[in-house]
Amino acid sequence: MRIIIDMDEVMADAYWGLVEKYENQFNTTIDQEQVWEKKLRDLIPEEHYKIGIGYLYEPGFFRNLRVIKGAQEVIKALWDKHEVFICSAAMQFPQSLQEKSDWLDEHFPFIDWKYRILCGHKYMIDADVMLDDHAYNLEVFTGPQKLLFTSPHNIAEERFTRVDNWEAAAKLLL
Amino acid sequence: MRIIIDMDEVMADAYWGLVEKYENQFNTTIDQEQVWEKKLRDLIPEEHYKIGIGYLYEPGFFRNLRVIKGAQEVIKALWDKHEVFICSAAMQFPQSLQEKSDWLDEHFPFIDWKYRILCGHKYMIDADVMLDDHAYNLEVFTGPQKLLFTSPHNIAEERFTRVDNWEAAAKLLL
Repeated sequence: MRIIIDMDEVMADAYWGLVEKYENQFNTTIDQEQVWEKKLRDLIPEEHYKIGIGYLYEPGFFRNLRVIKGAQEVIKALWDKHEVFICSAAMQFPQSLQEKSDWLDEHFPFIDWKYRILCGHKYMIDADVMLDDHAYNLEVFTGPQKLLFTSPHNIAEERFTRVDNWEAAAKLLL
Repeated sequence: MRIIIDMDEVMADAYWGLVEKYENQFNTTIDQEQVWEKKLRDLIPEEHYKIGIGYLYEPGFFRNLRVIKGAQEVIKALWDKHEVFICSAAMQFPQSLQEKSDWLDEHFPFIDWKYRILCGHKYMIDADVMLDDHAYNLEVFTGPQKLLFTSPHNIAEERFTRVDNWEAAAKLLL
């Protein structure tokens, strides 16, 4: 079984990476409960939204993200049992490309470079399972099993099998 | 029709990039005729081979490669007519990742980031045509049309439709 696994908000905690940078810059606190009820952009002043987007282009942002809980153990088990590819739409942020490679080297050293994909579109990748936090990737995935990894931004989405965390992913895929 | 096009030795002249660096370092000249008859490693002292491989890891190597003749015009025409993805096994050389993105921005600015793939294996990409200089990529490509772009290292290969240059590629694909 071939599985393609997204990086940001599935393996790497880009969401809280953004929140933390924002909180530090404006010396404020974003209510973690509210994040699950409202969109992040509705919790900050409108004029701050572009500043937040800018974080994604800052050197070091992707390199320093925390690993999402359980990702290392479960992906190692998936790697041993299935054919696993890591697949990130990183081409949008050219400064992130080597950072993502280095991040994988540090946190997921068992994932051979041959099984890493940095791209834009993902619909042309042939696999049995896609695990991704973005509905727009799952919508056009051609394989049979479309798994939505829960993230604050996709909480209202109902079209795909939802995977709330890596424990749930393990139950489904191991 | 979806076409995946390799970068090194198809769009970017990595081969002559290596030869030029070698010639400059050792103040020598490699006979360009001989390159098509013998493997490059048979034209240099054995102890120099590792030095040559090292060039691939040097910052700037991939950024400064020349564009292979005709690639810009023909790929633009292919882009306008077909669904074109650029696909390079760049994950082997992490320092090359942003360089390849920047190189495409400079020489192929019309190729949207969503249609750029940096990876290792290529066999999981679903397409109708693969244009690549490496037989090992064509061997495992699952699409119907496997086109071998001629490069000194593949001159003895006979299993695939050979494309000697971009003029020939245009005749086949446009």
